[in-house]
Amino acid sequence: MSVRAIVLAAGKGTRMKCELPKLLHTVAGRPIIATLIDEVMRAGVDDVTVVVGHESDAVASVLPESVRLVHQPEQLGTGHAAEVALEGIGDVSGDTVLVVPGDSPLFRAETLRRLLDAHRPPATLLTVELADPTGYGRVLRDGDSVVGIVEEADADDDQRSIHEVAVSTYTFDGSALSAALSRLTTDNAQSEKYLTDVIGILTESGPVGAMLADDPTEGLQVNSHDQLAMVDGAVRMRINQRLMEGGVWMQDPATTYVDATATVEPGVRLYAGAHIEGSSVVESGATIGPQTFLLDSRIGSGSRVWYSVVRGAEVGANVDVGPYASLRPGTILGDGSKAGTFVEIKEATVGEGAKVPHLSYIGDAEIGARSNLGAGTITCNYDGFRKHRTVIGADVFVGSDTMLVAPVELGDGSYTGAGSVITRDVSPGSLAVERSAQKEIPGYADRRARLREAEDE
Amino acid sequence: MSVRAIVLAAGKGTRMKCELPKLLHTVAGRPIIATLIDEVMRAGVDDVTVVVGHESDAVASVLPESVRLVHQPEQLGTGHAAEVALEGIGDVSGDTVLVVPGDSPLFRAETLRRLLDAHRPPATLLTVELADPTGYGRVLRDGDSVVGIVEEADADDDQRSIHEVAVSTYTFDGSALSAALSRLTTDNAQSEKYLTDVIGILTESGPVGAMLADDPTEGLQVNSHDQLAMVDGAVRMRINQRLMEGGVWMQDPATTYVDATATVEPGVRLYAGAHIEGSSVVESGATIGPQTFLLDSRIGSGSRVWYSVVRGAEVGANVDVGPYASLRPGTILGDGSKAGTFVEIKEATVGEGAKVPHLSYIGDAEIGARSNLGAGTITCNYDGFRKHRTVIGADVFVGSDTMLVAPVELGDGSYTGAGSVITRDVSPGSLAVERSAQKEIPGYADRRARLREAEDE
Amino acid sequence: MSVRAIVLAAGKGTRMKCELPKLLHTVAGRPIIATLIDEVMRAGVDDVTVVVGHESDAVASVLPESVRLVHQPEQLGTGHAAEVALEGIGDVSGDTVLVVPGDSPLFRAETLRRLLDAHRPPATLLTVELADPTGYGRVLRDGDSVVGIVEEADADDDQRSIHEVAVSTYTFDGSALSAALSRLTTDNAQSEKYLTDVIGILTESGPVGAMLADDPTEGLQVNSHDQLAMVDGAVRMRINQRLMEGGVWMQDPATTYVDATATVEPGVRLYAGAHIEGSSVVESGATIGPQTFLLDSRIGSGSRVWYSVVRGAEVGANVDVGPYASLRPGTILGDGSKAGTFVEIKEATVGEGAKVPHLSYIGDAEIGARSNLGAGTITCNYDGFRKHRTVIGADVFVGSDTMLVAPVELGDGSYTGAGSVITRDVSPGSLAVERSAQKEIPGYADRRARLREAEDE
Repeated sequence: MSVRAIVLAAGKGTRMKCELPKLLHTVAGRPIIATLIDEVMRAGVDDVTVVVGHESDAVASVLPESVRLVHQPEQLGTGHAAEVALEGIGDVSGDTVLVVPGDSPLFRAETLRRLLDAHRPPATLLTVELADPTGYGRVLRDGDSVVGIVEEADADDDQRSIHEVAVSTYTFDGSALSAALSRLTTDNAQSEKYLTDVIGILTESGPVGAMLADDPTEGLQVNSHDQLAMVDGAVRMRINQRLMEGGVWMQDPATTYVDATATVEPGVRLYAGAHIEGSSVVESGATIGPQTFLLDSRIGSGSRVWYSVVRGAEVGANVDVGPYASLRPGTILGDGSKAGTFVEIKEATVGEGAKVPHLSYIGDAEIGARSNLGAGTITCNYDGFRKHRTVIGADVFVGSDTMLVAPVELGDGSYTGAGSVITRDVSPGSLAVERSAQKEIPGYADRRARLREAEDE
Repeated sequence: MSVRAIVLAAGKGTRMKCELPKLLHTVAGRPIIATLIDEVMRAGVDDVTVVVGHESDAVASVLPESVRLVHQPEQLGTGHAAEVALEGIGDVSGDTVLVVPGDSPLFRAETLRRLLDAHRPPATLLTVELADPTGYGRVLRDGDSVVGIVEEADADDDQRSIHEVAVSTYTFDGSALSAALSRLTTDNAQSEKYLTDVIGILTESGPVGAMLADDPTEGLQVNSHDQLAMVDGAVRMRINQRLMEGGVWMQDPATTYVDATATVEPGVRLYAGAHIEGSSVVESGATIGPQTFLLDSRIGSGSRVWYSVVRGAEVGANVDVGPYASLRPGTILGDGSKAGTFVEIKEATVGEGAKVPHLSYIGDAEIGARSNLGAGTITCNYDGFRKHRTVIGADVFVGSDTMLVAPVELGDGSYTGAGSVITRDVSPGSLAVERSAQKEIPGYADRRARLREAEDE
Repeated sequence: MSVRAIVLAAGKGTRMKCELPKLLHTVAGRPIIATLIDEVMRAGVDDVTVVVGHESDAVASVLPESVRLVHQPEQLGTGHAAEVALEGIGDVSGDTVLVVPGDSPLFRAETLRRLLDAHRPPATLLTVELADPTGYGRVLRDGDSVVGIVEEADADDDQRSIHEVAVSTYTFDGSALSAALSRLTTDNAQSEKYLTDVIGILTESGPVGAMLADDPTEGLQVNSHDQLAMVDGAVRMRINQRLMEGGVWMQDPATTYVDATATVEPGVRLYAGAHIEGSSVVESGATIGPQTFLLDSRIGSGSRVWYSVVRGAEVGANVDVGPYASLRPGTILGDGSKAGTFVEIKEATVGEGAKVPHLSYIGDAEIGARSNLGAGTITCNYDGFRKHRTVIGADVFVGSDTMLVAPVELGDGSYTGAGSVITRDVSPGSLAVERSAQKEIPGYADRRARLREAEDE
């Protein structure tokens, strides 16, 4: 006997008035469907079948390889989708089958596990209690057993006052499911086969089980952008809660956005407006924000990154970044280094203790340890056709507003004069300067003033 | 028979401990009074009279031209204000008159319309049910009819337990209103005529109607900054809800600020901290934010604007803006162009596919298609007296740190060398360069070190 | 008879899975323990004793000097801590003693004052009513008197349904406290002396008093980062509420972060994401934000600071700062001056009406009135060893991309040419320029294209 899961993702590809298929919208940085399947797997189910429809390629691209994909060519209802799934799986008699809708990213592994543990033949429903159950099918109980589900339209007043509702999530004995599915008809307004009717069929022969989820939001399905925002907020709040309990300080959890795929270690401080996305790792003792965007980056212990945008960068320990820095992919900042204010860096290594404090663009470069780059330093890495590299040695002092026309190399301990355009390599310990003599034109202000008066007349 | 509205805005000019008159504070970017009048008009009432007091000019300046303004020279109460309004309107016998307080920006057109539809002679009150009605006048009903309003102070225990309260909003038969107003006295502590007393007078001759609003917040009046913040938040959340239902993705609706006057198309993505203000239009497929401010700007489809401030700009399709760009009025960015990091642009046209990627100030300029401006490019548009224009042709390559001393023109396909100050026009296809020879002073580092040691001794 | 307070801070030094001692975490910018003691003092208690344990030095460093510190060398329970406190204070017979836990920063002075006023011999408990009292000791009352506290584990069903719970905060007659403390034993699982047992001892001889706090959150103790975030949010919301009632406009109070130590005057406008920290003062009529960080800075009336980071700066009246400016310590901006976009200033005075509009780094400098600095102006203040000063007179026009190699001085009314490196002083009224002749190489584009084709072959 084994446990199998069927995730109904076909007919869930509906657009929410925008181009992206619904199941590919993300919650906490991961597609809805991937979020759900992660919880299903964490619940201990390894055999997962996803029934996909029109959007099959797009959906498949975000799923783990171990997932079995089956294709439902026509949208003939959830019951038909389950039939298609069973065809793909093969014989399930003797198995327990968990069926979950693909657009319910709030299910917790713990809840699905509890449902599996609570399973009793032939089937068990997951239910929630809603303050306002209007529109949902009410669960009719006889003690621990469910004797039926009654739709809003068919409910009498007593039944309408029931707050326990079903959330399209079930466990089945495999053989009972197969048998019941074969009895489904399309004898309804939509001409579709409904999985809910299976419960009706099963309760004809006796009661089924039900398990009430602790958290009424778990069954929420995403059908519109406002629901997506709510669900995304709920998942983010779970992540933040878990991080805070683990020792992460947050100035304002409500405006802290940590992807499910990112790592934030205990002892990190996150100020308001921190976005920690993708595969980012923030090490213990680092401070992020306010208002900082990290994507696929690592920030070392003791570093502070604030009012900055950082993508694909490696930031060492005790590094100062910002305010107002942009670190782009390929940036590596050594321990104790600095990327200060109005500084953009890409595809460049900044050595230990080296500083790029202000108003600089550094691209395709290597900067040695302890070097200091003056304000306005620019690596002229692009000649209109190709990108070229700049190499700056250790202990170099680059004067303000130095243009480094790549390919070019500044030797260890060398200097450049402010405002110089450096087109040729500089030897270690030398000063390179490109500059004319400063000339003074006395009385210039007076002349200009007279000229201006003349013009105005 | 026609429907007329009277908006009581006199005596509502109270300051909330700051200089701006109360009714001119904004909700979702529009003055409180303008927000309310828009709803009144959307409810189908074209004949709107606003009673203004001390702040009449300021209030008048934000109202539609079609509104009739009447001036209440002295603050003699809401009843007196209604009298003054009727004098301004003329004969209202046979009309239905809607009376609304001017500082209630949360009323929805739908609710006011429902109130008008529910109107029955001689008058109908709008009511709400409050969880905590303390301090409000309770509505005494006999079935569908109102037999009186009892103030908190005069209420017995039974009456105090009533949660339905009046919100100073009514429909009246015009003739009944006129007649009752003429019977008002100033026989009270404030020596003012109160409109609420009209209901007392009318209920003497028989019951009046009442209509309960669905949303208890609708009647909220703004009397302090914390109420203003709450009301502003409620209006913004309505806007966001409507946008999300229409297909707009929002990372965090709670920190997304869209003015009532702005347009955001379906399929737009708004990240946390997006401010969309004034007459801004964001086209389908554009992505805004995080942390981006748009004022009176248009952003084309497929464009991304993030961590940037954009005012009075036209951004075409598939344009990259930011992080950390400032686009000021008169900026026009062509399709596929780029205004990157630490880039400020004003009164300038950037051609299709042209790029201003880093650390540049472009003002009063025209940039042709496909041109590329190196980091540190500056248009020197100001000579201390006047602004001058810079014209850059198509396919131009501007070297890093080029100063373009306007007026100046770079011909199509021309180049400038890094660090050049360009004061004269450059012919098409030419390279212009302003630069001295690079000199090297060997042993400079050693000499400095020795000098420093000497100083330190 | 006098009133004394004992604050139990020993054993409260627990780390919350991060390095900082718990009581030193801040709410609204002040350490938890300092926040509480400020409220105790504002309640009218001048004689405050704090019992500290392991973290004594760290805790002591954030307390007012008037506070008496006593050291509890071993963690033997809250009862023992009170004993140690009494040893430090001396004779308290005839005094009223308020005992408060050190990790409860939400107590209001008003509530503590009301507790002291409600004190009746021999003791009075502060209580709150919780919607969910699970886990707390329930307060057993006989009318106004408390006859006992029963712990969750020992409570029967009737007692469990009580929602009034104790929050470890009491007033005692000094002599009754001393006597009861001497009867405490360590006869329990933790082998500690518990202060709560004092209430048990006292109620043996007769009832004690109780006072219910209005706000159930006041007694909240901080034991984890999620509680800290909640408590911090609550304190910030109190500050914001108070400011708004006083006439401060806030776009979004939920994302406005004002330290308890900062001053925001009526008539200020704070946009979303304003952080006002430390000793900052924002004067009436100033506008801050969106997204602006102020630390220890003063912003004058009529000034606007937006999308900027400002630390240790004095900003005069009617000054424009940002978007995207960084003002660092020692910055003084005169009335009517401007620090614009991508501008960093430190240790510098900008005169009245002077402007630094774009892309500049100004450090260790003085700028006279009405001077205008072109985009790209940089003070080269650092020669690799020392910082030097730049002095710019009044009415100076600094051309774009001027490097001012300090020490250097520009006389009143002088000019510099764009792109110049200025190494020597400039006389008043003169134009200084450092530049070569502009050369043109015709046909350059064609040659490059041919070269490139050759390479590609």
